[in-house]
Amino acid sequence: MIDKVKPQETSEVRRKATLAKVAAKQLALLTTAQKNEALEAMATALIVNELEIIDANQLDLARGKENGISESLLDRLALNSARIAAMAEGLRQLIDLPDPIGEVLEQIDRPNGLHIKKVAVPLGVIGMIYEARPNVTVDAAGLSFKTGNAVVLRGGSAAIDSCQAIVNVLHRALASLGLPVDAIQFIADPRRSSVDEMLKLNGLLDVLIPRGGASLIQNVVQNATVPVIETGAGICHTFIDASADLEMALAIAVNAKAQRPSVCNAMETLLVHAEFAKQHLPAIASAMGAKSVELRGCEQTIALLPNVHEATEQDFATEYNDYILNIRVVATLDEALDHIARYGTLHSECIVTNDEHNARRFLQEVDAAAVYHNASTRFTDGFEFGFGAEIGISTQKLHARGPMGLPALTSVKYNIYGHGQVRG
Amino acid sequence: MIDKVKPQETSEVRRKATLAKVAAKQLALLTTAQKNEALEAMATALIVNELEIIDANQLDLARGKENGISESLLDRLALNSARIAAMAEGLRQLIDLPDPIGEVLEQIDRPNGLHIKKVAVPLGVIGMIYEARPNVTVDAAGLSFKTGNAVVLRGGSAAIDSCQAIVNVLHRALASLGLPVDAIQFIADPRRSSVDEMLKLNGLLDVLIPRGGASLIQNVVQNATVPVIETGAGICHTFIDASADLEMALAIAVNAKAQRPSVCNAMETLLVHAEFAKQHLPAIASAMGAKSVELRGCEQTIALLPNVHEATEQDFATEYNDYILNIRVVATLDEALDHIARYGTLHSECIVTNDEHNARRFLQEVDAAAVYHNASTRFTDGFEFGFGAEIGISTQKLHARGPMGLPALTSVKYNIYGHGQVRG
Repeated sequence: MIDKVKPQETSEVRRKATLAKVAAKQLALLTTAQKNEALEAMATALIVNELEIIDANQLDLARGKENGISESLLDRLALNSARIAAMAEGLRQLIDLPDPIGEVLEQIDRPNGLHIKKVAVPLGVIGMIYEARPNVTVDAAGLSFKTGNAVVLRGGSAAIDSCQAIVNVLHRALASLGLPVDAIQFIADPRRSSVDEMLKLNGLLDVLIPRGGASLIQNVVQNATVPVIETGAGICHTFIDASADLEMALAIAVNAKAQRPSVCNAMETLLVHAEFAKQHLPAIASAMGAKSVELRGCEQTIALLPNVHEATEQDFATEYNDYILNIRVVATLDEALDHIARYGTLHSECIVTNDEHNARRFLQEVDAAAVYHNASTRFTDGFEFGFGAEIGISTQKLHARGPMGLPALTSVKYNIYGHGQVRG
Repeated sequence: MIDKVKPQETSEVRRKATLAKVAAKQLALLTTAQKNEALEAMATALIVNELEIIDANQLDLARGKENGISESLLDRLALNSARIAAMAEGLRQLIDLPDPIGEVLEQIDRPNGLHIKKVAVPLGVIGMIYEARPNVTVDAAGLSFKTGNAVVLRGGSAAIDSCQAIVNVLHRALASLGLPVDAIQFIADPRRSSVDEMLKLNGLLDVLIPRGGASLIQNVVQNATVPVIETGAGICHTFIDASADLEMALAIAVNAKAQRPSVCNAMETLLVHAEFAKQHLPAIASAMGAKSVELRGCEQTIALLPNVHEATEQDFATEYNDYILNIRVVATLDEALDHIARYGTLHSECIVTNDEHNARRFLQEVDAAAVYHNASTRFTDGFEFGFGAEIGISTQKLHARGPMGLPALTSVKYNIYGHGQVRG
């Protein structure tokens, strides 16, 4: 009799995650010196093998052009010597950052003689789901390695050849040092099903970190059973209070909107106290106009700036990532707080004011990862906070919030030292 | 024309979670003194109104008997003066614990003059899903309140009248102080669908904490889109190494198994080094026998203890929570580590040894919330660790691991103080 049931084949995702889990056990035991040596070797390997990477990148670019992807996506995808050098430099910067693993975070001596140490340990295996960005491959591999974590990388299929070439180069660097190459896994299966499989891989993946646009992130948040660290989406507000200094308010608002509109900590909506608006809204409009920012406004805004189009409900709920700004005039601080509570994404919010009482209320009452008094929301960033490289900006409240440096990629463990204690 | 589409009614779950979210904003602003006053008022109210609670409890008990639930479940459900006093005492103990909210966890001064404060804040709204245990209602309400969190409670339907009466009493205590009663919400809908709805309530619930048996927890972990803190399941091991002291090994093993077998930090499987087993397995068997522990063993165990039944794969993967113990003889420390990696649930694991090298390896290499050298796994507990009351024992790696005291119910926020800084 012929067995008609074919034995279940292990998928690429499951196979590679299993290898990563085995490697994670070895990784957790590496010394800081070993990990730094590996980072240096990986950085060097990227530069030495840049032609191999650029050749692979040409395949992605050619396919991208064939498929008619946009100029800006092609630009994001393209690699050259300078960009590869920047990736290598990113790895080298990790060398200088303190290694959080093994740090004793707390020591407790109990009356019964038990000595308890709370120690930082790696998370284990990190699953990264991201868009067609070769540089995220290097970032994620480096940050994971420095923290003793294995990583399973699932990048956007448009960058698949570049990412695979980068991972091949990193593998050779690890192999040359006798370190576990399985610590860095790249999923080559471009089908959506490989993402779906990662989302449910409890027991093999310890955490999923999505990086990319809102729909990518929401797919992970809505469908994963593996714990997720939610990153990114930012509908950030700046509130200019009645007592704000005009010059400061202009500088902060223009910086928050126009210095780099494509990023998550850029401002999408400006809230302006009615008293300030009455006097200064034309000055704001002209400063934004000078930066080619398109304005959309509430009724009161339009009363003061007749050429501005009306901002819809949908506009207030949109992360433009572009040279577009909503303006809403509010009568009170409370109205500003309500607007932020309704439309904000818990990312970065700012008040510009000279009123200490209002500043205190804003800092305390706004629920967001980063709340600013008299400074641009654009500072929400691992480097700007002094953490060094970041894996993303968490907009959830569990585990890590705000810019996530190396400690966000760690867990803890209690080691308990006894001499025969039993519980009575 | 008659509109045949009935406007969508807001469910009890959504309505109560929305009220909780509004209350959470007020709760976050309460002082420690106000929160402690409320805890004292709630404790007093439980005692003053014990008859109201006991009457309601009689309804649950009568229904339980009618439905033929087990004696042990009926006992767990039953309330009397002493048990209500214990609940009240639990609330009073929270008063003495330090309030984590508002604590400045880190201060950073940046070269550009930005001053960054990392501050502990409440999570917001906590969803608790638990079994028919009235005491969990009080515990969860108290722990949430002390940390400035609103809570949505969904207890097992067998305790619904008791829980509702308890919540009514707590509400009156809050109302008497003019504090927001909506901070504590109890879901009276006994249908499974009310749990399902809570699992997907992103935007209203900030975290879900399941407390109960493995199937309850797995339902939440597998189906929730709201972030979850996984608690509880414990397949804990004790490994007796070749060099272990016999007396200490016996004391620790008997305590870990038999002092209170029904809890998650009790031992389910004893791993014994072959050298130790050869000499001492009969002594272990007789010590366990004296506590009425049924033994199941591997082949080598049975060779030394012929009356013991064979332990199956399934046995090694079972959390008995009962007077049953698996014994497996292992040839090396590595074999013990492999067994734990395969069957453990990352909860609590112990090595009994006089070999410092092996102890170090075990503490470092075992992946679990609590790893013991020469002490019983039964110590994994908030009170035993000196944290005071606990909301559960986390067996996941994100956010909190091990016994979760008050700080596990907090998040953080960065407050950034500037004087007009913009990003260059």
